[in-house]
Amino acid sequence: MHTIEVIFTPALLPHYVIQGKTVVVIDILRASSSMCVAFKTGVKKILPVSTPEECRMFKDFDFIIAAERNAQMVDGFDLGNSPFEYENPVLEGKSIAFTTTNGTKAIKQAKAMQAGAIVIGSFLNQNYLCNWLLKQNNDIVLLCAGWKDKYNLEDALFAGAVIEEIGASFKIEDDSALAAHFLFQQHKNNIHDLVKQSSHAKRFTFLHLQTDDVSYCLQQNTCSVLPIMEDEYLVAITAIAPLLGSATGSAVH
Amino acid sequence: MHTIEVIFTPALLPHYVIQGKTVVVIDILRASSSMCVAFKTGVKKILPVSTPEECRMFKDFDFIIAAERNAQMVDGFDLGNSPFEYENPVLEGKSIAFTTTNGTKAIKQAKAMQAGAIVIGSFLNQNYLCNWLLKQNNDIVLLCAGWKDKYNLEDALFAGAVIEEIGASFKIEDDSALAAHFLFQQHKNNIHDLVKQSSHAKRFTFLHLQTDDVSYCLQQNTCSVLPIMEDEYLVAITAIAPLLGSATGSAVH
Repeated sequence: MHTIEVIFTPALLPHYVIQGKTVVVIDILRASSSMCVAFKTGVKKILPVSTPEECRMFKDFDFIIAAERNAQMVDGFDLGNSPFEYENPVLEGKSIAFTTTNGTKAIKQAKAMQAGAIVIGSFLNQNYLCNWLLKQNNDIVLLCAGWKDKYNLEDALFAGAVIEEIGASFKIEDDSALAAHFLFQQHKNNIHDLVKQSSHAKRFTFLHLQTDDVSYCLQQNTCSVLPIMEDEYLVAITAIAPLLGSATGSAVH
Repeated sequence: MHTIEVIFTPALLPHYVIQGKTVVVIDILRASSSMCVAFKTGVKKILPVSTPEECRMFKDFDFIIAAERNAQMVDGFDLGNSPFEYENPVLEGKSIAFTTTNGTKAIKQAKAMQAGAIVIGSFLNQNYLCNWLLKQNNDIVLLCAGWKDKYNLEDALFAGAVIEEIGASFKIEDDSALAAHFLFQQHKNNIHDLVKQSSHAKRFTFLHLQTDDVSYCLQQNTCSVLPIMEDEYLVAITAIAPLLGSATGSAVH
């Protein structure tokens, strides 16, 4: 039986072995949610980039450029990190270079640590993700992007939702996975109320940002896509067929 | 209003500012529990030491030497990390050099990061600790020792118990504190059942160790002592009188 683990923040990555494992990067508010929406809209590929400076350079190579820092869009970019922005049909077929405070950083760290498949999880594609994970013959790591290397509630909550859905098919050895599952069990009937208490949702309110983003990102199973890293890009799995050795699904390029 | 924060593992310390704050080091299974028992027994002082090699040297300086690694006593030492060992009346008035996998390391890291007062918390001295914390005029950090820099349930549970008892008197801004409190609220009527599921308790079973240690460490308020760092040593506060500036309590040397 394969294992399923939860890592509460990327800062804890050095204390885990993730090489060769299937890693699900979780940044509920809002990178992993926005990425799912982007692929549902028909975006061709997303390039996760470390810094706004690096991201800006891709403008010259026919990329849409998107950057968020401290929950706000960076000046001079085409897009920020609100999922509503990624519903725009003009994005169909386009390539996006994307940098965010937590999510894209976590993706790049997982890649640097030689994870196997790296995929993106959110409430929006939960069921699609879970079905795909069940078809992998591999250990699973649920990597919460957190907030600036600290634990956050909404990412842990979603890790718990995944364990609620597929945990019975895996061996759970670590306390983080148990704690995430407990959190979800405790709050599954009122996840909006829980996430509204989170530091991240309060940050949105403080910044007078579109707090509809929170409700948007807590919708379940609105996107039948799975963003997956292929080389340096995220592309979308939209059908079940072989990919990445033991993995299943076919990427749309 | 002062803040109360929870840090789930010492590996996350670099992402927090703890300078000048009152830090409670929590290593329920078993260092912080054993330290409380030791001072209840009448131990004079405890020197937290980084390595068994360093600890062994103190044998020549009239210290009792105690060392635990990977949940077991290290060969050649006087004591391991079971709270039962620290009930022995022969320890009265003695000094102990003590090294453990997680607890003493967390104490030394907090000291290196210039925490204000550093005290030791466990279920055994919970009420005594909480009363003392309420009398401090300072921000509080509940630092979970975890297991080899990973999150563990029993330390997070105790952090939640402290927040349940005194959290209303503090400002809670971080998601870790909310999550610890939720965990305690969910399990407060069956903390034994929860901790038996933890990776650490399972480790005890696997090693055929005295699993009574788990039940022992989950007793509440059996020790009216508060271990506190003074210079390089832990000493015990046993009465309420001024100490450490704004702190209250008197240390017994």
